[in-house]
Amino acid sequence: MRIDLNCDMGESFGAYTIGADAEVMASISSANVACGYHGGDPAVMRRTVRLAREAGVAVGAHPGFQDLAGFGRREMRLAPQEIEDMVLYQIGALAAIAQSEGVRLQHVKAHGALYNMAARDRALADAIARAVAAFDPSLILFGLPGSELMRAGAACGLRVASEGFADRAYEPDGSLTPRSRAGAVIHDAEAVVRRAVRMAVDGIVAATDGSEISMHVETICTHGDTPGAQALTRALRAGLERAGIAIAAVAGPRP
Amino acid sequence: MRIDLNCDMGESFGAYTIGADAEVMASISSANVACGYHGGDPAVMRRTVRLAREAGVAVGAHPGFQDLAGFGRREMRLAPQEIEDMVLYQIGALAAIAQSEGVRLQHVKAHGALYNMAARDRALADAIARAVAAFDPSLILFGLPGSELMRAGAACGLRVASEGFADRAYEPDGSLTPRSRAGAVIHDAEAVVRRAVRMAVDGIVAATDGSEISMHVETICTHGDTPGAQALTRALRAGLERAGIAIAAVAGPRP
Amino acid sequence: MRIDLNCDMGESFGAYTIGADAEVMASISSANVACGYHGGDPAVMRRTVRLAREAGVAVGAHPGFQDLAGFGRREMRLAPQEIEDMVLYQIGALAAIAQSEGVRLQHVKAHGALYNMAARDRALADAIARAVAAFDPSLILFGLPGSELMRAGAACGLRVASEGFADRAYEPDGSLTPRSRAGAVIHDAEAVVRRAVRMAVDGIVAATDGSEISMHVETICTHGDTPGAQALTRALRAGLERAGIAIAAVAGPRP
Amino acid sequence: MRIDLNCDMGESFGAYTIGADAEVMASISSANVACGYHGGDPAVMRRTVRLAREAGVAVGAHPGFQDLAGFGRREMRLAPQEIEDMVLYQIGALAAIAQSEGVRLQHVKAHGALYNMAARDRALADAIARAVAAFDPSLILFGLPGSELMRAGAACGLRVASEGFADRAYEPDGSLTPRSRAGAVIHDAEAVVRRAVRMAVDGIVAATDGSEISMHVETICTHGDTPGAQALTRALRAGLERAGIAIAAVAGPRP
Repeated sequence: MRIDLNCDMGESFGAYTIGADAEVMASISSANVACGYHGGDPAVMRRTVRLAREAGVAVGAHPGFQDLAGFGRREMRLAPQEIEDMVLYQIGALAAIAQSEGVRLQHVKAHGALYNMAARDRALADAIARAVAAFDPSLILFGLPGSELMRAGAACGLRVASEGFADRAYEPDGSLTPRSRAGAVIHDAEAVVRRAVRMAVDGIVAATDGSEISMHVETICTHGDTPGAQALTRALRAGLERAGIAIAAVAGPRP
Repeated sequence: MRIDLNCDMGESFGAYTIGADAEVMASISSANVACGYHGGDPAVMRRTVRLAREAGVAVGAHPGFQDLAGFGRREMRLAPQEIEDMVLYQIGALAAIAQSEGVRLQHVKAHGALYNMAARDRALADAIARAVAAFDPSLILFGLPGSELMRAGAACGLRVASEGFADRAYEPDGSLTPRSRAGAVIHDAEAVVRRAVRMAVDGIVAATDGSEISMHVETICTHGDTPGAQALTRALRAGLERAGIAIAAVAGPRP
Repeated sequence: MRIDLNCDMGESFGAYTIGADAEVMASISSANVACGYHGGDPAVMRRTVRLAREAGVAVGAHPGFQDLAGFGRREMRLAPQEIEDMVLYQIGALAAIAQSEGVRLQHVKAHGALYNMAARDRALADAIARAVAAFDPSLILFGLPGSELMRAGAACGLRVASEGFADRAYEPDGSLTPRSRAGAVIHDAEAVVRRAVRMAVDGIVAATDGSEISMHVETICTHGDTPGAQALTRALRAGLERAGIAIAAVAGPRP
Repeated sequence: MRIDLNCDMGESFGAYTIGADAEVMASISSANVACGYHGGDPAVMRRTVRLAREAGVAVGAHPGFQDLAGFGRREMRLAPQEIEDMVLYQIGALAAIAQSEGVRLQHVKAHGALYNMAARDRALADAIARAVAAFDPSLILFGLPGSELMRAGAACGLRVASEGFADRAYEPDGSLTPRSRAGAVIHDAEAVVRRAVRMAVDGIVAATDGSEISMHVETICTHGDTPGAQALTRALRAGLERAGIAIAAVAGPRP
């Protein structure tokens, strides 16, 4: 049994540092690297790709809205074609820097508000999927299980990878509990590990009402910009490995 | 005999239009497409690449400083590594969009203040050349004849193409007369055509003091954002063709 | 009888020109000056204030979303406090430049998506009104008649001025026909003038279904960034004056 | 005897935190608040003004180049008029937010590359001084003793306040040792305190060659974005007070 552990990385910008990338990198298998729109800049991108390469971590593009002031977390209403073009732009920019470091991209994961909107809005999801497929049809598209984004990716012929969030509460319908609600983020490391193991082994997660939801996922997201991220990620990896689950990038080890 | 005619293209941004790209495209052989830093945005980039493809015009990246407010014309002091990363970022972004339109990049031409600084500053020129070579060593680097940028490109193993400006006055030492000086830009279409033909046929241009400078160039730049650009570019092409000079992209016709 | 004619102004940015500000200024009585977020920059702001002063036109702040790429026309989901702070920031910036040109602000009109969202969303409308009142409670707030923004302004003790659009179609419920629908923008100058006169004299506008809506307005908006804006605005002023309606800024002539 | 202790504040941006503003505020008497160009955003500006007010610290505007990616530390070549307009824009924006918090600005201190360039370049210094004087001639302009900026401020009729850097090495000619050189920043807290006391009491600082330079200053700058800034600033205040020097804002206590 194996699972991928992914984390948003490279979201620092110029003089501003966010996250503990170097420390977290040691525990994950896939890094979602910001592409300069919601966070990151060309220098940070190079540094992050290098860190990932040295840690044997697969690299993916993490495109977001061009809203640095809002860190890509504020919804913006763009036309699907605008979305497609901006996603392609960001993937291309990161791929160029990655290539110059000898790294090929493994996957694409949309960031923040773009990710959430694409889970519900098929036109937007199609735009993202088209951009990914146009750049490289062998890229793997990450998304919420059962989301419009996963359907759009499959319709474009992309390999898709469903993603679970071990430190986030779920509603009975399988959606994430909004961050604005109490208990939306789970801080207890042991609980997080238990939930991750349950997802990885049984494909099940407990919802806020106690019901169990089917949650078959190939990759589990952990957050790098919260205090204690490093310890939590390390605990997550250790817990999963203790349960006999290998941590490996979705695309498998590179030859 | 043949020469390339290049023009800066795709510098519009969002609701803002600059230049008469569709009209000028009919007369040139190489388009320098802005990459979203000093001008351009992902939608404009796609539109411009498409225009170029339809007109049979070769596409190049036109990276600049991230200074939209100054249109990339204001000098900024960046470290060479910052320059390398930002140039690579911009080339990659454009190449991704171009590829999705079935177009491969032919060349790279730095924009505005970046171009001028790289003509004089070898460390900066090396940074640009490294970015180009890292992305694709078959890309052709445009620059001022005899400039540091041309030397840096050659040292990186790149094919370089010297560029002349038919509508700009030259100092006796071969440098461009600064735009701040009267007569720096030549507006008389006939004079511009005569100068272009002289450059293309004899490899010579007259300096401001009347002396003749050797100016062997493979490509001649024409400006698309000045009033009358369309008519001037058309006159330039017609005048060169009348003189028996074919207009063709530097890399030659694509197979 | 009198009415105010207002127009968005100063939306050029750096090397990019939009609108025919100098020409339109001769026909209007209030200029909504962009503040550097959705358009405009400090130099453009100064130039525009100067043009307004010379033409005897009242100056207002025209704050928008920080989305130059989308010209402030794309909806962004910001918290009310974020809205309040960014509106205050923009008003203050323009007021400083205006003051250095000897001009005091008359009004505030939100731009694009911010204007439309504030018409429907009271929390957002309150945020804008609070920012205006905090800066200067004598500023006049422009908005759609009957909108949440007008209510919020009144609740804050601000003088509000209802605004009509002579060149836009209205739905039977008094809302503007979305631009995406055919006929949303009226291009026939005579029709535009007729509608403006009807609004100014009778307080009535015809809706798309032929019904008549009550539309008591103190100011009529004309658009400066459409082709033919100059001629249309001139025709509008002439038509209103022919009908015996004086064109005067909402706050009345400055002493 | 008294001296002002100033520190750059409010340089966080959106999701990005820089500096330990709340902690440092307790030890200083003047806060230089970033205005959204090189750092800061409207929400951060409000928060910072509030922190200053609560700590009884005077507030000044800290305008910089519009280069968030470079934190305003990279030289940019702007025309003097561009500088004047952008400085005025930033002061106005901060003043509006400060006023809504019941705070009037005390001073203006240019940031980073703008500060350094204005020390040497009179045209640029004049532009800054003109912007300050146009906004409010009672604002105090901070700058290096003997710099062009101090001369420009005085020529504009502004009160100027010379500034010393207790944690920076000085060259024999009174200029700051460039950060690129070893020993440019002094990290030993005791040495920093000793130097500050010497400046405040004797108006003297030791240069890198051991010679003593006259350095009459009204305000001493301490840095808030370095590790240990809080402890150093506290030590600085305590050391100065132990030496019998009161810490008070340049403009004196507000009535």
